[in-house]
Amino acid sequence: MSNQTEKIIKGGSFLIEDISYDRIFTPEDFSDEHVMIGKTAEDFVENKVLPQIEHLEHHEFDRTVKLLKEMGDLGLLAADVPEEFDGLGLDKITSSLITEKMSKAGGFSLSYGAHVGIGSLPIVLFGNDDQKRRYLPSLASGEKLAAYALTEPGSGSDALGAKTTARLNAAGTHYILNGEKQWITNAGFADVFVVYAKVDGEHFTAFIVEREFSGVSTGAEEKKMGIKSSSTRTLILEDVQVPVENLLGEFGKGHVIAFNILNIGRYKLAVGGVGGSKNAFEITVKYANGRKQFKTPIAQFNLTKEKFGTMASKIYAAESSVYRTIGLFEDNQGRLTEEEAKDIKKVANSIAEYAIECSLNKFFNSEVLDYVVDEGVQIHGGYGFMQEYAIERAYRDSRINRIFEGTNEINRLLVLGTYLRKAMKGELPLFQKAMALQEELMMLMPEEPGDEPLAQEKYLVKNAKKIGLLAAGLAAQKYGKAIEKEQEIFVNIADIVSNAYAMESVVLRTEKAIAKEGLEKSKQKLLYTQIFCQEAFNQIEQDAKETLVAVEHGDTLRMMMSALRKFTRHTPINVIAKKREAADVLIEAERYIV
Amino acid sequence: MSNQTEKIIKGGSFLIEDISYDRIFTPEDFSDEHVMIGKTAEDFVENKVLPQIEHLEHHEFDRTVKLLKEMGDLGLLAADVPEEFDGLGLDKITSSLITEKMSKAGGFSLSYGAHVGIGSLPIVLFGNDDQKRRYLPSLASGEKLAAYALTEPGSGSDALGAKTTARLNAAGTHYILNGEKQWITNAGFADVFVVYAKVDGEHFTAFIVEREFSGVSTGAEEKKMGIKSSSTRTLILEDVQVPVENLLGEFGKGHVIAFNILNIGRYKLAVGGVGGSKNAFEITVKYANGRKQFKTPIAQFNLTKEKFGTMASKIYAAESSVYRTIGLFEDNQGRLTEEEAKDIKKVANSIAEYAIECSLNKFFNSEVLDYVVDEGVQIHGGYGFMQEYAIERAYRDSRINRIFEGTNEINRLLVLGTYLRKAMKGELPLFQKAMALQEELMMLMPEEPGDEPLAQEKYLVKNAKKIGLLAAGLAAQKYGKAIEKEQEIFVNIADIVSNAYAMESVVLRTEKAIAKEGLEKSKQKLLYTQIFCQEAFNQIEQDAKETLVAVEHGDTLRMMMSALRKFTRHTPINVIAKKREAADVLIEAERYIV
Ligand SMILES: Cc1cc2nc3c(=O)[nH]c(=O)nc-3n(C[C@H](O)[C@H](O)[C@H](O)COP(=O)(O)OP(=O)(O)OC[C@H]3O[C@@H](n4cnc5c(N)ncnc54)[C@H](O)[C@@H]3O)c2cc1C
Ligand SMILES: Cc1cc2nc3c(=O)[nH]c(=O)nc-3n(C[C@H](O)[C@H](O)[C@H](O)COP(=O)(O)OP(=O)(O)OC[C@H]3O[C@@H](n4cnc5c(N)ncnc54)[C@H](O)[C@@H]3O)c2cc1C
Repeated sequence: MSNQTEKIIKGGSFLIEDISYDRIFTPEDFSDEHVMIGKTAEDFVENKVLPQIEHLEHHEFDRTVKLLKEMGDLGLLAADVPEEFDGLGLDKITSSLITEKMSKAGGFSLSYGAHVGIGSLPIVLFGNDDQKRRYLPSLASGEKLAAYALTEPGSGSDALGAKTTARLNAAGTHYILNGEKQWITNAGFADVFVVYAKVDGEHFTAFIVEREFSGVSTGAEEKKMGIKSSSTRTLILEDVQVPVENLLGEFGKGHVIAFNILNIGRYKLAVGGVGGSKNAFEITVKYANGRKQFKTPIAQFNLTKEKFGTMASKIYAAESSVYRTIGLFEDNQGRLTEEEAKDIKKVANSIAEYAIECSLNKFFNSEVLDYVVDEGVQIHGGYGFMQEYAIERAYRDSRINRIFEGTNEINRLLVLGTYLRKAMKGELPLFQKAMALQEELMMLMPEEPGDEPLAQEKYLVKNAKKIGLLAAGLAAQKYGKAIEKEQEIFVNIADIVSNAYAMESVVLRTEKAIAKEGLEKSKQKLLYTQIFCQEAFNQIEQDAKETLVAVEHGDTLRMMMSALRKFTRHTPINVIAKKREAADVLIEAERYIV
Repeated sequence: MSNQTEKIIKGGSFLIEDISYDRIFTPEDFSDEHVMIGKTAEDFVENKVLPQIEHLEHHEFDRTVKLLKEMGDLGLLAADVPEEFDGLGLDKITSSLITEKMSKAGGFSLSYGAHVGIGSLPIVLFGNDDQKRRYLPSLASGEKLAAYALTEPGSGSDALGAKTTARLNAAGTHYILNGEKQWITNAGFADVFVVYAKVDGEHFTAFIVEREFSGVSTGAEEKKMGIKSSSTRTLILEDVQVPVENLLGEFGKGHVIAFNILNIGRYKLAVGGVGGSKNAFEITVKYANGRKQFKTPIAQFNLTKEKFGTMASKIYAAESSVYRTIGLFEDNQGRLTEEEAKDIKKVANSIAEYAIECSLNKFFNSEVLDYVVDEGVQIHGGYGFMQEYAIERAYRDSRINRIFEGTNEINRLLVLGTYLRKAMKGELPLFQKAMALQEELMMLMPEEPGDEPLAQEKYLVKNAKKIGLLAAGLAAQKYGKAIEKEQEIFVNIADIVSNAYAMESVVLRTEKAIAKEGLEKSKQKLLYTQIFCQEAFNQIEQDAKETLVAVEHGDTLRMMMSALRKFTRHTPINVIAKKREAADVLIEAERYIV
């Protein structure tokens, strides 16, 4: 996929540019090696983790530590760590696929994820050679475990509002850290914490703090709704002496690390959501095949089929979007020379490039997961409310995903915020494209897409993007700098853009599959694509209407509404019939398949 | 409200008839006595139940029994029991208001609800004088506690698929019951169970079974996702000898009792949902006023305001719908003479009359509740995931409401099912009205509602009903008897009808309030009405489109889509602005107010 001779795909550019399917990564592009490592992770969960899950849910974290060490022995913690530091230095796709497979393990997958992800990556990506040498080998092997400590009781979304302080001691050898970091995943057993503190109450900076340092302690385990297999505690820092060598990245630039690690955390959460959704789907379809009411397996009721069709088409959208995004990362970061990969700014920029996509994936996929587990419970009926059934835990475990790694609200706000910044800086010709579109409106003629497969869906994608651009352009014009306050508009635009991204991702993936495998073998993908595009487009229409009515009035509003009508006019497909068709295959397979 | 000289309002008739606001009951019509009893219940929860909630959540059911006895002493268990049998014989509104207020107590409110509702009502409504004399006084006082045992491991939605058997002994003095009833609320401590069993494996019949009878036992407490303060166990019946005098209602007519009690259970669940929603709202708005991020109380972010505006407008819809429905019951049952009230068929018919409204309320209000608690968690951020915070429990407690008293799927299916039956039997001129509407379509001209308050909303209500009727009529024509299989269409029509009912309920309530109190004092109600009607109508449009595309094709489809466009054409209001306005009042009040 990654064609190094072509220019990189700019972050957010999908809204204003077309792209051909051969430039995007899809799960059909997994190599044999990817599949093999994925299988290793899957087997590990099945054979090692799930049999102990009740113990893990009851906070027997010695088991967690042991399991993670075993994962280390299998190489499952080393994918993102460079070979130079005893890692495997594999591509982003590998570590993502492991994350997807691990998610079946519920809370334990968080222990894994926080360690290899937000815990270790700050050192992998932003550590200096000395720090990498000191920490990475033992993190890659699972000998030492890591955590990421940003949040505080008073600062969550407003991470930079942290109160934890650092000051250099008189000798200039150590920073003295004081403060409390709240809800730190892995805090119960982690050895290494990446801690953010303000030097002299001002310069936000990252530090590598070891549990062994004196003055480090942790609070009691939190009692949580779900992911009970994961450890969540307060990290207490009382006059902790951190050697100056443990300052991570640049002085006063902790936010560069914090936010870029969150970007990665977001797509990892999104890919974990795909794994969780597939798992919940499988549990549920199996249950529905087995449970009879009115002398009929409940899977055979058309209403249940409707649910399976919807769930699977959403999973397909989530899966297509996130692997496309991971492909972008791989393509971009794969281009960094060894030298560049040690340049903090270059690394940071290569991550920040796709901040929009990371946010889109984060909120979209976590909402698909919540949707799927919710329907999973519902299809289980009363059994779904009973802790004996795996879907009950899946429901509770899922809910946190819309809250951490930036709440879904914060991630929605970031989408237009980042677009506007990119436009301002001239990185994306957003305003120009928006102006051009407005001029085009007057002569707009409704088009008729052809009859060939995907013709209608491509047409909807094209118009979805135009609607997003139109709404964003009008809002930017109307409010100017004051737009910050119009959060509802931000959210609507984020939803439009997110649906457009997901629609395009499924269309391109299916198109690629058809080109490779033919139509016959791609029928299920085509069904998902048709269902998802139709439903996402309906949602876009609603969001756009609400936005236009809020932004415009009088004649302009009338004109814009009429433009919107032209953009949205199409003959809807019969999603009910398509869902039945898709469901029949799923019920037969007893799991999500494409 | 109840005007006994006018004809009763027929169940389901709202879809094809207009009604004036003075014929509907609204919360503004509560009498002083209603308010007083509501206050008693509220104080009881606040002062007696909530302080012990942690104990109750840990299954200390001796406390539950004691609390219920105290409620009995206060008269809070006696509202629905006739005075003749030591009850208070109050109206339906009173017991509903108590239910609303109790819901703040989470799982305990289920213990209360199962006792006074599905547990006691079978005897209140369908018992003979002897049975009433033997059981009701002690149930009304809380000396004895009741439960309702219909579900079995293999039969939930398909209640008539029960396997529990009864056979008359040789002496003809006792029925011998054998079987297992699953997930019986209150089973841990109830003294009296209304049990459904098939005599000779065939004749579905209700029995009053006492725990004291030999052969009665219960299984272990279930481990549930939520409502942990309620007891849920299997009721095991092994050669239980039930005196023939304890056969309840008519032999072989157990379903008349089972289903009509469920109808009542549905509106009670719906009114409980209103109480739960208000409680979750209050917890959340208080939290949001206290929590600062970015130096701002999070309640002040426009995005939070958007959420509050949506939540409150939905609560208003749920509240308006359910009290309207309870008013229908009160009006209808209040007309039964003392004699008629002892006639099982008359009682059953007076309940079954509003089966459609009960189902609509059940699924609509339980989904509003789930929506509100979900946003409640979200607004709490990470704190919403912590068991220390009341919203965490509210989230888990809420989920069951979409499952029991008939799953929301089953209740949705019942709507059109019941309509078609009523139409077939000539109880409602549904087909005639649908035909007339189809003929009207050709000459349809889009109308322009006026500018006065509620004009637009009334216009939307009128068209919402027409859309519902159109969709139902077309589906009935197209599929004929085979319509049973088209469950997706049933669901869409149920959603249209449900939204139409809720829209009409808020419009009439607000209109009534304006007539009584003037516009100025009704501003908040007007805002909710505008917001809710706009959003519900959008949903109706989507559901109708999907339905038309599934039912029709070719020229007819084109004609119907064009009719739909005419029905749906209107200038949308700016819901974003309205929600901000509504939210400002709510944030100031720190709770849901109207
Ligand atoms: C189980 C668990 C594990 C966690 N693990 C870690 C970890 O390992 N490391 C770590 O550092 N942190 C961790 N966190 C913290 C997590 O990242 C935060 O909970 C999250 O960032 C949200 O912050 P908050 O909870 O303080 O919510 P708040 O920031 O208080 O937000 C509350 C509500 O206000 C909204 N809001 C906030 N600001 C705005 C705004 N400007 N505009 C509109 N709405 C706004 C939010 O969307 C949310 O709905 C964890 C949390 C949990 C619950
Ligand atoms: C905490 C709790 C308390 C309860 N308390 C009581 C009580 O006090 N007394 C009592 O008698 N019962 C009680 N119940 C049982 C409750 O009423 C049932 O759980 C409910 O009726 C659903 O039945 P089920 O769980 O067997 O689900 P099922 O009937 O197996 O349904 C499973 C799924 O299939 C769907 N489905 C079923 N039939 C159809 C169809 N024809 N078409 C389309 N979809 C269909 C359902 O909607 C659901 O999504 C309780 C349950 C719980 C969990």
